Amino acid sequence: MTKLWGGRFTKGTDVLVEEFTSSISFDRRLYKEDIAGSIAHARMLAKCGIIAADEAEAIIAGLTDILADIEAGNFSFETALEDIHMNIEKRLTERIGPAGGKLHTARSRNDQVALDTHLYLRKEAVAVGQLLCGLQEAIMETAARFPDAIMPGYTHLQRAQPILFAHHLLAYFFMLGRDFDRLRGVWERADIMPLGAGALAGTTFPIDRKQVADELKFGRLYENSIDAVADRDYMMEFLSFAAILMVHLSRLSEEVILWCSSEFKFVELDDAHCTGSSIMPQKKNPDVAELVRGKTGRVIGHLMALLTTMKGLPLAYNKDMQEDKEGLFDTVDTVKFSLSVYAAMVRGMKVNAPRMLAAADEDFTNATDMADYLVKKGLPFRQAHEVSGKSVRYCLEKDKKLTDLSLAELKEFSPLFEEDILEAIKVETCVAARNSYGGTSPSQVKEALAGGREALKRQLAWLDTHRKNGI
Amino acid sequence: MTKLWGGRFTKGTDVLVEEFTSSISFDRRLYKEDIAGSIAHARMLAKCGIIAADEAEAIIAGLTDILADIEAGNFSFETALEDIHMNIEKRLTERIGPAGGKLHTARSRNDQVALDTHLYLRKEAVAVGQLLCGLQEAIMETAARFPDAIMPGYTHLQRAQPILFAHHLLAYFFMLGRDFDRLRGVWERADIMPLGAGALAGTTFPIDRKQVADELKFGRLYENSIDAVADRDYMMEFLSFAAILMVHLSRLSEEVILWCSSEFKFVELDDAHCTGSSIMPQKKNPDVAELVRGKTGRVIGHLMALLTTMKGLPLAYNKDMQEDKEGLFDTVDTVKFSLSVYAAMVRGMKVNAPRMLAAADEDFTNATDMADYLVKKGLPFRQAHEVSGKSVRYCLEKDKKLTDLSLAELKEFSPLFEEDILEAIKVETCVAARNSYGGTSPSQVKEALAGGREALKRQLAWLDTHRKNGI
Amino acid sequence: MTKLWGGRFTKGTDVLVEEFTSSISFDRRLYKEDIAGSIAHARMLAKCGIIAADEAEAIIAGLTDILADIEAGNFSFETALEDIHMNIEKRLTERIGPAGGKLHTARSRNDQVALDTHLYLRKEAVAVGQLLCGLQEAIMETAARFPDAIMPGYTHLQRAQPILFAHHLLAYFFMLGRDFDRLRGVWERADIMPLGAGALAGTTFPIDRKQVADELKFGRLYENSIDAVADRDYMMEFLSFAAILMVHLSRLSEEVILWCSSEFKFVELDDAHCTGSSIMPQKKNPDVAELVRGKTGRVIGHLMALLTTMKGLPLAYNKDMQEDKEGLFDTVDTVKFSLSVYAAMVRGMKVNAPRMLAAADEDFTNATDMADYLVKKGLPFRQAHEVSGKSVRYCLEKDKKLTDLSLAELKEFSPLFEEDILEAIKVETCVAARNSYGGTSPSQVKEALAGGREALKRQLAWLDTHRKNGI
Amino acid sequence: MTKLWGGRFTKGTDVLVEEFTSSISFDRRLYKEDIAGSIAHARMLAKCGIIAADEAEAIIAGLTDILADIEAGNFSFETALEDIHMNIEKRLTERIGPAGGKLHTARSRNDQVALDTHLYLRKEAVAVGQLLCGLQEAIMETAARFPDAIMPGYTHLQRAQPILFAHHLLAYFFMLGRDFDRLRGVWERADIMPLGAGALAGTTFPIDRKQVADELKFGRLYENSIDAVADRDYMMEFLSFAAILMVHLSRLSEEVILWCSSEFKFVELDDAHCTGSSIMPQKKNPDVAELVRGKTGRVIGHLMALLTTMKGLPLAYNKDMQEDKEGLFDTVDTVKFSLSVYAAMVRGMKVNAPRMLAAADEDFTNATDMADYLVKKGLPFRQAHEVSGKSVRYCLEKDKKLTDLSLAELKEFSPLFEEDILEAIKVETCVAARNSYGGTSPSQVKEALAGGREALKRQLAWLDTHRKNGI
Repeated sequence: MTKLWGGRFTKGTDVLVEEFTSSISFDRRLYKEDIAGSIAHARMLAKCGIIAADEAEAIIAGLTDILADIEAGNFSFETALEDIHMNIEKRLTERIGPAGGKLHTARSRNDQVALDTHLYLRKEAVAVGQLLCGLQEAIMETAARFPDAIMPGYTHLQRAQPILFAHHLLAYFFMLGRDFDRLRGVWERADIMPLGAGALAGTTFPIDRKQVADELKFGRLYENSIDAVADRDYMMEFLSFAAILMVHLSRLSEEVILWCSSEFKFVELDDAHCTGSSIMPQKKNPDVAELVRGKTGRVIGHLMALLTTMKGLPLAYNKDMQEDKEGLFDTVDTVKFSLSVYAAMVRGMKVNAPRMLAAADEDFTNATDMADYLVKKGLPFRQAHEVSGKSVRYCLEKDKKLTDLSLAELKEFSPLFEEDILEAIKVETCVAARNSYGGTSPSQVKEALAGGREALKRQLAWLDTHRKNGI
Repeated sequence: MTKLWGGRFTKGTDVLVEEFTSSISFDRRLYKEDIAGSIAHARMLAKCGIIAADEAEAIIAGLTDILADIEAGNFSFETALEDIHMNIEKRLTERIGPAGGKLHTARSRNDQVALDTHLYLRKEAVAVGQLLCGLQEAIMETAARFPDAIMPGYTHLQRAQPILFAHHLLAYFFMLGRDFDRLRGVWERADIMPLGAGALAGTTFPIDRKQVADELKFGRLYENSIDAVADRDYMMEFLSFAAILMVHLSRLSEEVILWCSSEFKFVELDDAHCTGSSIMPQKKNPDVAELVRGKTGRVIGHLMALLTTMKGLPLAYNKDMQEDKEGLFDTVDTVKFSLSVYAAMVRGMKVNAPRMLAAADEDFTNATDMADYLVKKGLPFRQAHEVSGKSVRYCLEKDKKLTDLSLAELKEFSPLFEEDILEAIKVETCVAARNSYGGTSPSQVKEALAGGREALKRQLAWLDTHRKNGI
Repeated sequence: MTKLWGGRFTKGTDVLVEEFTSSISFDRRLYKEDIAGSIAHARMLAKCGIIAADEAEAIIAGLTDILADIEAGNFSFETALEDIHMNIEKRLTERIGPAGGKLHTARSRNDQVALDTHLYLRKEAVAVGQLLCGLQEAIMETAARFPDAIMPGYTHLQRAQPILFAHHLLAYFFMLGRDFDRLRGVWERADIMPLGAGALAGTTFPIDRKQVADELKFGRLYENSIDAVADRDYMMEFLSFAAILMVHLSRLSEEVILWCSSEFKFVELDDAHCTGSSIMPQKKNPDVAELVRGKTGRVIGHLMALLTTMKGLPLAYNKDMQEDKEGLFDTVDTVKFSLSVYAAMVRGMKVNAPRMLAAADEDFTNATDMADYLVKKGLPFRQAHEVSGKSVRYCLEKDKKLTDLSLAELKEFSPLFEEDILEAIKVETCVAARNSYGGTSPSQVKEALAGGREALKRQLAWLDTHRKNGI
Repeated sequence: MTKLWGGRFTKGTDVLVEEFTSSISFDRRLYKEDIAGSIAHARMLAKCGIIAADEAEAIIAGLTDILADIEAGNFSFETALEDIHMNIEKRLTERIGPAGGKLHTARSRNDQVALDTHLYLRKEAVAVGQLLCGLQEAIMETAARFPDAIMPGYTHLQRAQPILFAHHLLAYFFMLGRDFDRLRGVWERADIMPLGAGALAGTTFPIDRKQVADELKFGRLYENSIDAVADRDYMMEFLSFAAILMVHLSRLSEEVILWCSSEFKFVELDDAHCTGSSIMPQKKNPDVAELVRGKTGRVIGHLMALLTTMKGLPLAYNKDMQEDKEGLFDTVDTVKFSLSVYAAMVRGMKVNAPRMLAAADEDFTNATDMADYLVKKGLPFRQAHEVSGKSVRYCLEKDKKLTDLSLAELKEFSPLFEEDILEAIKVETCVAARNSYGGTSPSQVKEALAGGREALKRQLAWLDTHRKNGI
């Protein structure tokens, strides 16, 4: 097939090379952005007198028809036409004649594809933000449903101190809140308009980049044409955001998987969110959580891939950069899917509060409270720690809990122990006593829920504003 | 050596394990942050009545002496004491007696190390920002020194269109500007105060976290104690920032290396920034640029390392997270060194403008302008592209430049060519004509320089404000 | 749709979850391996008396029909049936009735999918090996076509010493030879038979794993059933092999891109292996080389992804491991495509020998030879290096080449110079003189070509033997 | 300080640049290899008549003295002298006079450093192999100590089927066996001698590379001088090996951490291999296992770093490649430390067999056996799976175990159940019945232990042979 750039060549492209270098199999996903960008470009060209008004109208009508065709499935994409840009331009000219050949005036594929991917990522950033808020809501609801459930908090996967289950879940709410903040940064850097940079140097036509930006609702213009076509930061930044987000989800996954094990049994997932085994009839597996944990590697891999691909490339555009899209698209899909399915899964969790409480009541999760008790009686903390540690060792040898010890036994370890020690190290006391700001006490958690709701409202308001900028 | 947590144990730690798990060989770097945090903590404990005022005074005096000792090199760090926290606490108690044992009241190493690294990264973010601005200044100065130098712009490392050397350099200025914006995001997320989270659940003591935050000039508090000790986002975000920054520097490196080659010879580096060969007497190698390009892998590796380490960890603290520091420290050092040395190197570059101009004047970098010329005479761009392409092919066969063609020859390709074509495709015309916003024309570049200077002022003002928050 | 494992469940799977956890969209690629494995399994079950001979016949006939259907495009894969295994088993039972339900006796999907991917990778390792040899052949042919072309060898992208172009190309031949050796290691580890491991513990039926291995021509059996289903080493090892191979190709890419630049002009690619620009009519871009360089990031990303996914997974199978396939398949495709297209590109390269020679004759690439000359006259090398370096500096100041210097001028630097110096530092002399084993002299290169041909024969013989093991 | 390559330069190196580009802070580790390589080189130079015999003797004596000085701590390394090679050469000349300046005849730092790192890695590969065998031995011993302990096998972290603890541990034995095989591949590729490649093109002196190889006991020579100095495969391959090995250890770590949790309590680590908490007196944390899991990220990061650094580098040597060493050294240290500490930890594990057995006896780990039972009575497996699944559901509703069901209840699900069902689904029966090759039955595990011992012997014999090749 004749190439639109074939004038200089004496020989056609090798079919294998054509297939190898073509991007139409994946960049067709950008058809909507490509057409919206072309319409804005054509309108601007006419307004600046670079093409005639009726040519612009013909172009816009042609593009609108092509959009309808694509959405109706009536468009056949050609590998030999390389990419979404050439596929559409070729079809446009077939439809409207030579005026189609004017669309590419004052433009290159280099700035065109940059425009498309900026439009795409700006839109998807909002969509991801919406799902992120959805998961935060699910977390908050689930936390609010179990205001009193006490579980052991863990460090090193060893039981550490008793905490509220709601407090634990809310840790993820706040992580995701920071992810949202990072996403805003991604949006800011996606919201920069590259068109008009041409191949790399700008154009000799008297274009008006500001008009294109206004029509497509961009807040800023690239200030340097070479940078405009060479930049892939916004993608790398999105992938970094996504990698960190997936790390968060992988941690929640790990916990859900632990909680669903027979050993923990803190939580049961809904049958609808689990699958079985082809061989073992009893199995009910937390596949969703495992898969999200696994997909963390996938997203980190995509980040690695783009960073490596961009490393050491001279300015401006290089064909290597065509590799930017598949990983980006797959990351957008993966993140959206993971967030959606997680929101449903978290909402569907059944919590086994008695089991959690029983676990919190074993294994000396109150040993810190015993030390704190002694500190409040005047012992320096480091010595109090020693006393409590020795009491634990004594209990381990006698197979007892700290609350099983008599006052006499306790006084062997320190004369400071008095009757009130038993009350001080009850698991409910331990939880309620951690009442410093951000702590696990019921009143702190209540405040955190209220604060979280406010934060979520602000996030949703931001999304509302920025969704309007979509095309 | 007796451990400060040894009460519960019946047996000492294996020496190999001690060495394997100890972090003092690298976290000693945090001594200043650790002491500043402990002083703020002690002051707060006293103010809240948790320890006595004279105890706090003794602690603060003791810590101040230890700081002086460390800075004077009079402090011997012990592997058996595991980390910077325990090394200092042990020494403190040796100096001031039992009051030293009160310092750890209402605190755990989990929130303590989180505080230290937040303080560290917040400070280093400002330091990195300063050096980033320094490189931007060097770029701008160098661009301004060569306002008229024309070079070929490249895509696919093929000569594409003539551009100003200053315009090319400024592309990096704007990339670095986005890096600066991302660094601000890092700072925001580092500026959250974790102390008071205790091991993971908060503390039973009536502490005042806000006071500690105020004293250490933090803008926000962690709102969830588990999140406070489990979070390493700020580090992952810094490493992402650094990886993208290094990708930018690697691209500049690649270009400097190309420009210094005998084939390009666009630029000569100062002897002071090059090294020679042990065997080849003639060699003068652009080592600095190569090394920065190479170190891009190193920084990307550190990012990957932390993402992988954090993946799938249950809340809250796990020992795996001790692996967070070495890569972070090395990245801070690498980025700071790279930025410093690059600023010097860019300032020291000698530009070979005649050689650049000659290169721009060959190889049909004006072929787009020839097509644009025809468009302005009424031909649709796609056909004009074809005409220009065929003219190029003709020239290749005849070993001519486009400007060598006679009007008669040109008219063979299109009747639209007239006398003014020669002027239209002169290299200086091509550059000047790309006068759209952000383009390479001298007037656009002049504006970009002015705009850049303003942007840099705003960045420096931000740094001034935020440096004050350092400890 | 009813799940084949649904007995234990009270509720169907959520549609979103179904879509999220299904792998049929990508593991359908394994249909051939899956059916071959099932046929071998059925035959063994019958031979061991676990199912009846006529049941095995019915199963085998049914599977054979299904294979034909799939290859003819007459098979509709169902997302609700999750994966290739369940899709085929369900269809089998629809065709042949209850006997179909006996196929999964003594087997789990865990060992089944392990078998499929071992078969797949073992086959593809041979296919990749074939293409690797193909590229080595193309390199050798191209090297042999230009036995005398002299080019500058580079270190630090600075001209270093004159070399034969053939010698340079052959460096890649030997790199690829090591890649081939690594691929053999991959094959060895893929050639281990997992079936019979069941879910993870083996099976209660009296199976004969050796028979299955023999039928499928496996050299070894997994010796531990848990390891058999938990192992993904062979994939990680293949991805490592592929990442290193792509690094090699990326280095060749970088060089081809440099050589095609106007500044180097050492090589011209065939028009059939290049593409043009949508805007710049003169452009002829080395897209293939750029894309291969870019795809290096992609493959490294896949390696990173799988390593991260597998990190920290408890034994035996976890759903995370479903993420192993897409990256593996994409890597196989990428590597095969890259090797094919590179073989064609290397064969199609036109070499500009005069340009190369001219470049080698400039820039003091003979300075080492001048030093060596002095050494041979008795000066210690370190002093000879100094003399030669000073001569270079003198030439730089006078804008001369070393061969331009008069004997009188040379004697200013060292009295050891005599008439024969001029001959000693001629570029052809320099090349011919590097006649140590593996050096660049024509006679060494001739031997290297001969040795390379032998090595290639051995590789092809290995492939012949191992191709027979394919299914 | 005067550079040994300074002849051509008019200006000294900037101090910052000197510090940035110097490698002496880390490559001093190679002093032994560097000196051994230089001695072999000097001896060869003399034998080939390139230097005089007495010069070689002086050089060798001088180098031997320097080696002693370094080992005694009496050598001060200078940053200005860049690297280990120049530091030693400079000192040599100071000691023995001009003859020292002859050592670098027919050699470049490019082939010298390649020789050093080959020697280093070849030696360390054997050392790592030794420790790998050590861990395998510890695993085998621990498995052999508990031949009868039954635990639940897991998939998806859900209890799946009962297995022997010894069988589970041995899965790691076989993984490590594959790691050993990969390490042999690393050794093969490290065992190639690069010296004589010079800067990149070979040398003009009549050297004998074979003699150097023989003296240093290398099996092969690099066949292409450019490849010899440009190759870093052996490092990338070692890092790949190490990354996969660490993934294995991370999986074992995850399990040890789970087993040490209060929820599992399958295993208790020795106090000597755990550490406590600064705040929580009861804590005993499995730090070693966590740290090894965390360090997996570190090693993967180093692999990614080197792959990224090497990507896209033109031949031959580039300064980027100086970045190869730190990650390599750190990986060698990390892997050696991890293997050592793990061998001790595994040996020190106390196994809680009753707890494991109780866990295996709950949660329907015998449901597959119930299905298999029905299959043996003639039911197709898929239907048997359904029956067993429904029985499980029934038990879940009634809060019973399968062994609690009466025959009457069972017959409701299938008339095929008879009296012998109870025996068939006892946990001990389930384990013993999985007697296929590689299965979990006691007799299979006994054979696996015997086979493992043989394999280990072969590995140790290989190490013995290859250790002798060390310097």
